[in-house]
Amino acid sequence: MSAFSLEATDGHARAGVISTAHGPIPTPAFMPVGTKATVKTLHPDEVRALGASVVLGNTYHLHFRPGEDVIEELGGLHAFSGWDGPILTDSGGFQVFSLRHTLLAVDDDGVTFRSVYDGRAERFTPESVAEIQRRLGSDIAMCLDICPPASATREEHAEAVRRTTIWAERQLELPRGPGQLRFAIAQGGTDEGLRRRSIAEVTALPFDGFALGGLAVGESRAEMLETVGWAATLLPTDRPRYFMGLGDPEGILEVVARGIDIFDCVLPTRMARTGTALTADGRLNLRNARFVRDPGPIEEGCGCPVCTRFSRAYIRHLVNQEELLALRLLTQHNLWFVLRLTAGARESILRGDFDRYRREALARLHGAASA
Amino acid sequence: MSAFSLEATDGHARAGVISTAHGPIPTPAFMPVGTKATVKTLHPDEVRALGASVVLGNTYHLHFRPGEDVIEELGGLHAFSGWDGPILTDSGGFQVFSLRHTLLAVDDDGVTFRSVYDGRAERFTPESVAEIQRRLGSDIAMCLDICPPASATREEHAEAVRRTTIWAERQLELPRGPGQLRFAIAQGGTDEGLRRRSIAEVTALPFDGFALGGLAVGESRAEMLETVGWAATLLPTDRPRYFMGLGDPEGILEVVARGIDIFDCVLPTRMARTGTALTADGRLNLRNARFVRDPGPIEEGCGCPVCTRFSRAYIRHLVNQEELLALRLLTQHNLWFVLRLTAGARESILRGDFDRYRREALARLHGAASA
Repeated sequence: MSAFSLEATDGHARAGVISTAHGPIPTPAFMPVGTKATVKTLHPDEVRALGASVVLGNTYHLHFRPGEDVIEELGGLHAFSGWDGPILTDSGGFQVFSLRHTLLAVDDDGVTFRSVYDGRAERFTPESVAEIQRRLGSDIAMCLDICPPASATREEHAEAVRRTTIWAERQLELPRGPGQLRFAIAQGGTDEGLRRRSIAEVTALPFDGFALGGLAVGESRAEMLETVGWAATLLPTDRPRYFMGLGDPEGILEVVARGIDIFDCVLPTRMARTGTALTADGRLNLRNARFVRDPGPIEEGCGCPVCTRFSRAYIRHLVNQEELLALRLLTQHNLWFVLRLTAGARESILRGDFDRYRREALARLHGAASA
Repeated sequence: MSAFSLEATDGHARAGVISTAHGPIPTPAFMPVGTKATVKTLHPDEVRALGASVVLGNTYHLHFRPGEDVIEELGGLHAFSGWDGPILTDSGGFQVFSLRHTLLAVDDDGVTFRSVYDGRAERFTPESVAEIQRRLGSDIAMCLDICPPASATREEHAEAVRRTTIWAERQLELPRGPGQLRFAIAQGGTDEGLRRRSIAEVTALPFDGFALGGLAVGESRAEMLETVGWAATLLPTDRPRYFMGLGDPEGILEVVARGIDIFDCVLPTRMARTGTALTADGRLNLRNARFVRDPGPIEEGCGCPVCTRFSRAYIRHLVNQEELLALRLLTQHNLWFVLRLTAGARESILRGDFDRYRREALARLHGAASA
């Protein structure tokens, strides 16, 4: 039985629910990134209050610090971090392949690399990352994949597709946590032949969901969207579709329009830590001197816990004085914005009105003057 | 009429209430320091939930960033910072005199110094700091004083006493905010003659409260406590007594025993930001490897929002990974601890049992093995 229930479609856009051992994930869903067992600066109760239904944890980082053995002993990632909702863990593959200077060797059995924490050689295999994720106790575990940069040759992409498939096949044979769902990843870059092959191979396997990996890794936005446009439709309709590593407001609207259900990105939280707020009318740099006496909220009409309480003038002061409260407040606002944008997309899909929602939101985002 | 109501005494220890325009301050009271219009890392609702009844703001820092004009325009320090309880502002004098390399000139009219923000020459006078505090809208404003280090000569201390008195006299003539209370400061270091003279001079003036300044500035703890022991008893019984710049657990118990009502210190919040927790049994360094798998709370039996939710293992992980949530959680615990210690002192004074409370608390603090 599928853990995914499709509730409505509107064009290619979909609304549904992923059922997990720690509760439902209504889709489309943005997943805040909790790299090291914390969504940076926030208390888990705040993440919940912002409307997040699922967070992402990074297998690579948690494996090295504090280690899956520690987290397992403390009752798993939910108990350890105090977040009792659904958690998706990546496989660690993205970190291994994006930290290219640490890569030592890749073969059909796995990948050897140097840890960014202590420089020691370490090996990830489908077996080891499945075991790490089993012990972390995440609700959704991702397969180990090979994620080449957009600049990789066709041969490199072909090899990534081949190994990603054989690794997915092996992952299916391995133990998993109670109720843990398993998602496979299709690679192939923007090469239609390779991407189609990868999708055909992994979707032939009985996974609980499928991800498009190896996109938003250096290719143009137009190429990325064109690829998602046809690739998403090749994924099974009765399984959740995950676009890995995307979370800017325009990108969310565009991939939802192309049939993607879940996505994650550090952008809203990382932007916050540079003093930048996301709003329906574009980005605001809160360091800007024009806010020094501005009594208004970050975003007029925003119902987030920050906009209903603090002025731009106060937040600008905190940002400029490098007060840590600034990072919390901007993180809360930015996550609220992206989560509300996504929830609004879901509501409009259920109403059959997504295309208008998308066009109006994009028009505001693009028409905006930035700070 | 006095804004201070004395409820009980127990030996020299006192329990009372200071009535302010933003609510009562039950004493003894520890004031968390909100240097730049924020108690570092915390939301004002969290400060309230920890049991703080009053916070301290720094006139020096707020004058330069963002400026009292900005804060006044935004509705005053309460509205600006989102803290609606009582606020005490210092005069800025302590910063001016402790940042000695920035000091340019002191005369009977005021003090000239270079701003640590931009190096420009700036002048504080009794008139200017009263005006800044009026515009900030604090509930309790402090007089400008001269605070020499413990190493100062007797002549320097004598000159500090003389100027502090004439500045206090001038402050009384100046406009203040609606309902704003004014506290004067006695100087004189640990020199009994000078300290007595200073106390006699300032307490002859109709201030709402009196502070002992120029202690805990380099002299030994024994000298400091000996001085407070006789100096506090010279302060009027019907006015609150403020010991400036003290907030370690032992120190709190000892100055309360000597008749002090309110005190402030960055110690609990600064310790938190170095990974150190205050507990009834002493200090814990949460970086310590022995906590890596420790499922227990920071402090067994502690009812704070952190100890009831997170493990030492998780907090150690956050501290070691430099996650900002660690600083929040340790700040919350440390403030809770100091505020509860102070509230416990108040309760024991009301019960007539303070000496036992103090002795038992000190025995636990001193008997503790540190991490």
